[in-house]
Amino acid sequence: MKMKFEEELAGKAKEAEKIVLSYLPDDVKLCGTLTSAMNYSVGSGGKRLRPLILLHVYDVLSAAYAGATGRKCAECFAAALEMIHSYSLVHDDLPAMDNDTLRRNNPTVWVKYGEAMAVLAGDALLNYAYETAAGSFDMVDDALHYQLIAKALKYLGSKSGIYGMVGGQCVDVESEKKQIPLDKDALLYVHENKTGALLQASFVIGGILAGADDEELALLSDAALNTGIAFQIRDDILDVEGDEQILGKNIGSDEESGKSTYVSLFGLENAKKDATAYSQKALESIKRLNCDTSFLVSLVEYLTERKY
Amino acid sequence: MKMKFEEELAGKAKEAEKIVLSYLPDDVKLCGTLTSAMNYSVGSGGKRLRPLILLHVYDVLSAAYAGATGRKCAECFAAALEMIHSYSLVHDDLPAMDNDTLRRNNPTVWVKYGEAMAVLAGDALLNYAYETAAGSFDMVDDALHYQLIAKALKYLGSKSGIYGMVGGQCVDVESEKKQIPLDKDALLYVHENKTGALLQASFVIGGILAGADDEELALLSDAALNTGIAFQIRDDILDVEGDEQILGKNIGSDEESGKSTYVSLFGLENAKKDATAYSQKALESIKRLNCDTSFLVSLVEYLTERKY
Repeated sequence: MKMKFEEELAGKAKEAEKIVLSYLPDDVKLCGTLTSAMNYSVGSGGKRLRPLILLHVYDVLSAAYAGATGRKCAECFAAALEMIHSYSLVHDDLPAMDNDTLRRNNPTVWVKYGEAMAVLAGDALLNYAYETAAGSFDMVDDALHYQLIAKALKYLGSKSGIYGMVGGQCVDVESEKKQIPLDKDALLYVHENKTGALLQASFVIGGILAGADDEELALLSDAALNTGIAFQIRDDILDVEGDEQILGKNIGSDEESGKSTYVSLFGLENAKKDATAYSQKALESIKRLNCDTSFLVSLVEYLTERKY
Repeated sequence: MKMKFEEELAGKAKEAEKIVLSYLPDDVKLCGTLTSAMNYSVGSGGKRLRPLILLHVYDVLSAAYAGATGRKCAECFAAALEMIHSYSLVHDDLPAMDNDTLRRNNPTVWVKYGEAMAVLAGDALLNYAYETAAGSFDMVDDALHYQLIAKALKYLGSKSGIYGMVGGQCVDVESEKKQIPLDKDALLYVHENKTGALLQASFVIGGILAGADDEELALLSDAALNTGIAFQIRDDILDVEGDEQILGKNIGSDEESGKSTYVSLFGLENAKKDATAYSQKALESIKRLNCDTSFLVSLVEYLTERKY
């Protein structure tokens, strides 16, 4: 059973990756370095979780609702979401931010192309994400579908920017630069926004473009948020008691660096209890969706109960 | 006559500034530094050319065409355009890019808030520009107006990103970092894209939202492009023979730094001849517009014949 899910997940990741890559810009006259840096960043692997979730939610819900926008629109948004995820990594890795030299075993964009080009490649990806998402307007021609795309676009903006991902990054970066550990409120804010917000965008935009009603969208939003928090708590737990061989990285790094984690603020036992509670809440929302939920249930379990 | 135009321009800049500032985000819980950095960047002056042009073009053309979207939509896009202009300055000033410490006599964002926050503030502004522009969908409710806003949004993306401003920045930065002077093609590319593209967005988006037809939009696009190029050539000429007292800066800096300019590549006399020719072309397009063109004619003359 588990093997079957993991195969399905890998297949969906492969499909999502193919779609995302097909939306990257062709070489632009005189700007070869920039397109190369953009493609290097988006093309260098990753789990493709966000686009595959968006496409899957669209697929299962558009079967249940009338009035979906069409799958091509969902593909535009899936590509846009992955571009936004990628730009955030390119900028996060900069010397002025996390100063990381390796990502997925490859040199980071700034190491390979220089800092200035990494700043511009991130900017170009963020902008191109909106160009790509807005391209979906070309695929519809009535007011209802225009409205759905406009709603998806606004949702994407709200979860990517200051009220979402960038807001979370800001709180995280400030705490690190000032070396003031996060308190409980701030840690939850970072967990909800730095990674949770784009996860929400994946679930909810899939639903919006499928034509799902507000009740369904609220379930998707809750499911994504609780999954995101459980995922992050699990991350903090694994840093304390994970298996270094399975994880492929050293444990204990959070404690060493004096970083606030769910475990340091709430204790290991509470962290475990809460991770399970958030995961259960996510599953309850998923199960109330008006569609075949088997893949999503397995996905939430996979993300929140992982050992790696 | 000239005095009257400059008063009108100042009045329009003041109105545009008020509108732009009204669209900036309120303080966000825990992200006070980020909103402060965003507001500092957008709030610290500037000529407000892009938003004032967009609003003026919208105002004069919406009177001539049926089906305009409504002025609030134009205001959303005017604010978005200025946010995009601002984010590009915040990132341009970074140590990894131009390493500038002063802008309009104030410390640049990275000097005041740190490099990491400047990266994030730029990202947040770019994202918020799209949120703000997409907010205009809330102000319309029929397919025709949805289409106009979608068209404006796609145009904004195309002129801001890799096929527009960021593309121009890339070629400029690469030439500087590698210390290889631009050749003629590359210099024109930078002139057309680094500043010309957002100027085009100002003119053309004003026209799109006013409901102007394709012929009118082509005139606006030509006028903006030729104005932008003439403006840049004038910049290069002033660096050779400008009056330091009127300019408020030293001349000769381009030659000292070995930078390619229109003058170094084509010679001073050709530069003057071409600046006039581009400016004339811009004026011809403007005069063919289906509206009162007096302000736009004065504006183009002001931008392309300036002595400062």
